[in-house]
Amino acid sequence: MRVVFIGAGHVATHLALAVHAAGLQVVQVFSHTANRAQVLAEKLQATFTTEAAEVVGDADLYFFCWKDDLLREVVVQIKPNQGLWVHTAGSVSMGVFEGHALRYGVLYPLQTFSKERPVNFRQIPCFVEAATPHDAHLLLETAALLSDRAQVLPTEKRKYLHLAAVFACNFTNHLYALAGKILNEQQLPADVLLPLIDETAAKIHDLPALRAQTGPAMRQDKGVMGSHLQLLVDPQQQEIYRLISDSIYKQTFS
Amino acid sequence: MRVVFIGAGHVATHLALAVHAAGLQVVQVFSHTANRAQVLAEKLQATFTTEAAEVVGDADLYFFCWKDDLLREVVVQIKPNQGLWVHTAGSVSMGVFEGHALRYGVLYPLQTFSKERPVNFRQIPCFVEAATPHDAHLLLETAALLSDRAQVLPTEKRKYLHLAAVFACNFTNHLYALAGKILNEQQLPADVLLPLIDETAAKIHDLPALRAQTGPAMRQDKGVMGSHLQLLVDPQQQEIYRLISDSIYKQTFS
Repeated sequence: MRVVFIGAGHVATHLALAVHAAGLQVVQVFSHTANRAQVLAEKLQATFTTEAAEVVGDADLYFFCWKDDLLREVVVQIKPNQGLWVHTAGSVSMGVFEGHALRYGVLYPLQTFSKERPVNFRQIPCFVEAATPHDAHLLLETAALLSDRAQVLPTEKRKYLHLAAVFACNFTNHLYALAGKILNEQQLPADVLLPLIDETAAKIHDLPALRAQTGPAMRQDKGVMGSHLQLLVDPQQQEIYRLISDSIYKQTFS
Repeated sequence: MRVVFIGAGHVATHLALAVHAAGLQVVQVFSHTANRAQVLAEKLQATFTTEAAEVVGDADLYFFCWKDDLLREVVVQIKPNQGLWVHTAGSVSMGVFEGHALRYGVLYPLQTFSKERPVNFRQIPCFVEAATPHDAHLLLETAALLSDRAQVLPTEKRKYLHLAAVFACNFTNHLYALAGKILNEQQLPADVLLPLIDETAAKIHDLPALRAQTGPAMRQDKGVMGSHLQLLVDPQQQEIYRLISDSIYKQTFS
């Protein structure tokens, strides 16, 4: 199976390395950024191009790892062909290919990717769908070569998965940032929180989040919550504190 | 060194086991709940009591692992003695002992404890203070027997540490709960989020949270954010989504 990557960012890099490691042949990488395209292509022993018109037309599989809101723009730049076109965005409908690609689908790896950190792709849940049952089957088989947790999921469900991921990853990371800011303002090193952060994440492997909940909001300890609100000087951080505390309280006692 | 535990909950259990493992002698456990006191005392080869009046007076160290807002109440029930009295609450001032205990201090282990999960106490940052330099030194030496990360920290700084911990642990766990709820409502299993949650936590060992930030709020992808707000039916969850997204945006572009 010959594979082309449209995009050379974090998702493209990690997915392409997994595809390569699984023994599939990545033949080409396309990116507007020559350096990125080249660096990734070299890792894969593939060619690269910065011109949409030069994307090869005879590959079996095209992975579009592109910014969500610019995806349609790049799709229509590629000349239609007989290959299966697949995007990897959690929040974008499969319909982004409609009216242009002949065969298309989605492979959504539920993970946060940074260039700096290797990931074990086998452990990443991968959700696929395609416009035809034949291609859905093909894509599921391909995903199963990369991950032990591949399954078919329609766009409508995938959107909720992406929304949940925003809470569990993007918003959580922001709470880490706010916590780090509080410590930084007090000249306390942010790394004292790492064992706590690790244990909070590890805990919910064993306990449902509802049962793992601790802290002043759950206990409705108004004394502690009041003094915390006084320590926070930023009105938006106070509002985040109030809102999440109230949500914890409601969830605990509903 | 002879140690008494006032309380037999999660913190008392984990701390007492670490104290015991470090070779200090736990002589007694006090709790209003006989069963809890007994279970913990047996693990420590200690005696137990449910009566404050029966707490032994000749120990060297008394750990008060009690609910923050009821701490003063239990402190005044114990007859003053020559031992060092120490509480373990992040948000409670050392002053809770004033006017009653003769020698007192704080040992705050920065971790979330559940009865079900063992923890490696050596990795837990422990922050101590005491009313006199002599006792501060004694407490720091004791904490260093339990943890590789023991240090002295005054009440004023500790309060910020506790506040940061609420963001990084209690609030984060609630985001896990909200994410799990979204999946549950769609009949999707919550465990598909575990690799993402693990990686989000693991990432900030290597990257500052600001640099690890990803997602639609950081990209200001209004299309994705708008569709997420439509998927959320609960007004409070919508408000949390809006508020944290706005806070991410401000932090990214400030």
